[in-house]
Amino acid sequence: MANYHSIYLHNTIKMSIYVNTKSSFPFKTRSNLSRSSRACTAVVAQNHSYWAAIEADIDTYLKKSIAIRSPETVFEPMHHLTFAAPRTAASAICVAACELVGGERSQAIATASAIHIMHAAAYAHEHLPLTDRPRPNSKPAIQHKYGPNIELLTGDGMASFGFELLAGSIRSDHPNPERILRVIIEISRASGSEGIIDGFYREKEIVDQHSRFDFIEYLCRKKYGEMHACAAASGAILAGGAEEEIQKLRNFGHYAGTLIGLLHKKIDTPQIQNVIGKLKDLALKELEGFHGKNVELLCSLVADASLCEAELEV
Amino acid sequence: MANYHSIYLHNTIKMSIYVNTKSSFPFKTRSNLSRSSRACTAVVAQNHSYWAAIEADIDTYLKKSIAIRSPETVFEPMHHLTFAAPRTAASAICVAACELVGGERSQAIATASAIHIMHAAAYAHEHLPLTDRPRPNSKPAIQHKYGPNIELLTGDGMASFGFELLAGSIRSDHPNPERILRVIIEISRASGSEGIIDGFYREKEIVDQHSRFDFIEYLCRKKYGEMHACAAASGAILAGGAEEEIQKLRNFGHYAGTLIGLLHKKIDTPQIQNVIGKLKDLALKELEGFHGKNVELLCSLVADASLCEAELEV
Repeated sequence: MANYHSIYLHNTIKMSIYVNTKSSFPFKTRSNLSRSSRACTAVVAQNHSYWAAIEADIDTYLKKSIAIRSPETVFEPMHHLTFAAPRTAASAICVAACELVGGERSQAIATASAIHIMHAAAYAHEHLPLTDRPRPNSKPAIQHKYGPNIELLTGDGMASFGFELLAGSIRSDHPNPERILRVIIEISRASGSEGIIDGFYREKEIVDQHSRFDFIEYLCRKKYGEMHACAAASGAILAGGAEEEIQKLRNFGHYAGTLIGLLHKKIDTPQIQNVIGKLKDLALKELEGFHGKNVELLCSLVADASLCEAELEV
Repeated sequence: MANYHSIYLHNTIKMSIYVNTKSSFPFKTRSNLSRSSRACTAVVAQNHSYWAAIEADIDTYLKKSIAIRSPETVFEPMHHLTFAAPRTAASAICVAACELVGGERSQAIATASAIHIMHAAAYAHEHLPLTDRPRPNSKPAIQHKYGPNIELLTGDGMASFGFELLAGSIRSDHPNPERILRVIIEISRASGSEGIIDGFYREKEIVDQHSRFDFIEYLCRKKYGEMHACAAASGAILAGGAEEEIQKLRNFGHYAGTLIGLLHKKIDTPQIQNVIGKLKDLALKELEGFHGKNVELLCSLVADASLCEAELEV
């Protein structure tokens, strides 16, 4: 028996959780869930409220830190494009991973916010007004208030600002400078040459039908997998997790992010479905050995891929 | 009597030093200089070799750190655009400031290199192939090997890479994480919302003749002054300079950078010449109280504005 339930991640990404009594994955709470739909509904509500609370905290932090101030000509478009981009689950994964290994949410909020800003900056450059020409009867990917020059510059300013936020978290949120520096390296790689930028480059390649599948998987690993991996690892680093925990969460994030990327592609072929299934299993396997309610919450992000695909509303 | 002498900063920026026996600025070495042209020539050669050595060290560091490696599709254009951009004196000022307050050169090389990368990334976005259309009989500002999409993405990758270089310097070059985080904040602001990006934004404004002068000065402060200020301050921070030293060097960098920016504009009006003269005096004044040969070396960057203007070859 399988029950599907949806949670909303900040009203933009509707994720699903999968409650399967046959699951081989040792969930204390999940096995309880199937005993009654009432208990199940309660857990769904709990998950919903958990992700919503994380997103609300990130939102508050972003609004405060990227508030419109002098120079307004720069901060106004930075503020607009930060909130115009869809949310990435990577930010929430960062916070959840931090809490999973025993950290406080406050330790990860600046980093989770910076991850959103990096993602929004890349999104702005991916959808500059020059290139963001939708098909008839469809909307542009982003609400363009400015011309391409301003949106180009704003993306640059946002990326720099993201790093300022990370480095500045030493002052208030996180007293461990070595961990912050490690996270800066993680994020600069994932948002740069080893992640999103590599994915964007490849996206412009023309590939033949024969290598098309490998190509799509590679794109998703680079554009989504690396940033989600970095987010999960960063959460664990900030919380002072053991190296083994950091690595497991990095792997989880990589599988989960690649899976989310493939779902974005909305390609319903048996080959893609097969990979999605494998990624789901691999992601869940990485969470074995972790304990507490956050395990279930993280599992819920990947547990049912097919439903997640149908319900992604990004 | 005034003698003008030129030094070359990495073969691209020809700077000049001003040897003036009437100078009110207390230079031990400079006053010696005027005693004989032989001594003067020796000092010029010494200055030349000092700046050339710094530039060579930055060059070596950049070549090693941004070597073409996997993914080549990303690193090859990053490498190209890093070296295609003209050098900025900000990098050398960072090293000189570090040494001035007693630091080792190795403490500042990663930061000086990152400053060049940020500058080169901004330069690439300022001169994307779409907008870099030179007048007849003039060359484009940059050698374009790629299309606008690739150069846009490469600039993004370079900026992220610059921050990776900064954060990664904890591993080899600099053991003080708090200072590195402070420098990251400095550089993110100068390359972002409070510096270069603000300057670029304003550059797109149309201003009337009445406010044109203030406008140009503002642009130069933002596009050049902030980064040179940050570079000088960062050098002093990395060396563990006192707050007063950091502030004086920041001010020096700000005046020197704004002056260099004005010289780039090649506008020969009495009003601009007047401001250049004032900036020179203000910059030199900030160096009072510092001792050692580096004082003269830093002074040489701003000491003679009019000759510097004529000889800038950027």
